Amino acid sequence: MGKVITGGSMSLDGYIAGPDESGFDLLFQWYGNGDVEIPTASPDVPPMRMSAVSAKLLKEEWGNTGALVVGRHLYDMTNAWGGRHPMDVTTVVLTHRPPQDRPAADENFVFVTEGVAAAVARAKAIAGDRDVVVNGGQIARQCLEAGLLDEIGIELVPVVLGGGTPLFAGLGGTPAQFEGPIRLIQGTGVTHIRYRVKR
Amino acid sequence: MGKVITGGSMSLDGYIAGPDESGFDLLFQWYGNGDVEIPTASPDVPPMRMSAVSAKLLKEEWGNTGALVVGRHLYDMTNAWGGRHPMDVTTVVLTHRPPQDRPAADENFVFVTEGVAAAVARAKAIAGDRDVVVNGGQIARQCLEAGLLDEIGIELVPVVLGGGTPLFAGLGGTPAQFEGPIRLIQGTGVTHIRYRVKR
Repeated sequence: MGKVITGGSMSLDGYIAGPDESGFDLLFQWYGNGDVEIPTASPDVPPMRMSAVSAKLLKEEWGNTGALVVGRHLYDMTNAWGGRHPMDVTTVVLTHRPPQDRPAADENFVFVTEGVAAAVARAKAIAGDRDVVVNGGQIARQCLEAGLLDEIGIELVPVVLGGGTPLFAGLGGTPAQFEGPIRLIQGTGVTHIRYRVKR
Repeated sequence: MGKVITGGSMSLDGYIAGPDESGFDLLFQWYGNGDVEIPTASPDVPPMRMSAVSAKLLKEEWGNTGALVVGRHLYDMTNAWGGRHPMDVTTVVLTHRPPQDRPAADENFVFVTEGVAAAVARAKAIAGDRDVVVNGGQIARQCLEAGLLDEIGIELVPVVLGGGTPLFAGLGGTPAQFEGPIRLIQGTGVTHIRYRVKR
């Protein structure tokens, strides 16, 4: 059975997005500051070029991923990544109302309306032995609150944004403690840190 | 000439203090979760017992420190550390009104009223070739804004506090970028990360 993982690029002052959805150029600078090309499966997302260290980790983690769970906001904001998620896996979308212009499930997207636990269960069934990655701050928070998360990964970026959306914003049951880091890897302009959720 | 440094223990969601000044037990757990004793010069602060890795770093950094700059809030809150700062160096206190019950300067405390740049200059003169450490979030923010800081150190602790005081809260001129990490050291329950301030 694979793990359920979430993560994101975070500023030194703890924000995964800056004020008024700013700062993404800085938070994701490491996607483009190196020489190793990472192709993406999305027609809308060009290949990334990152440092060898970051690319090695990303390839390993993407290779271990069997399905994604995302919120409807991210799905809409990215315009469904042009039809296929960059990570080239089936993406389970948690939504109250599935879009009318798509089948309820195909190899690209599966729409689940029965809540976050059902979405994660569906993704686990698709992923098999591989991991499930949960994306988007609100849905990651819901998974953590529901005890569904096994690990979190932080890509710590040396910038102070001064405001914005904190990691796990609005989390219930704080303080929440984690174990580790279980991995700590220094890239260029980013520190990759992996923690295990404490049970 | 030494460097001017600040830093602090920070939660995964970017807070150096939790809601209503809570969370210090978790943020400073690494001060007491190991076997290596670190004596302190303060009669009010008992020796710490931390992991060998953290102790080695702390001893090195404390040994390189020639003077401190703190705000009046920290000085009052700690009751002047019982007379001497734990790091065993002269502490420059930035204040509008020096306390009546102490000399303006002795080997333990020096009171400066002319602003943060004057306080740092005074500490540099005391420190000589060694470093100046700036403590307390507000004064660290002022030093960063005034271009007085050379490095910042973050002790990243795997806990989500859900709210509180962010690192460099209220910083002007964001986004502010840093170089590095120039050092990255994994302790027990804490990751020590050092950055250089970008000029």
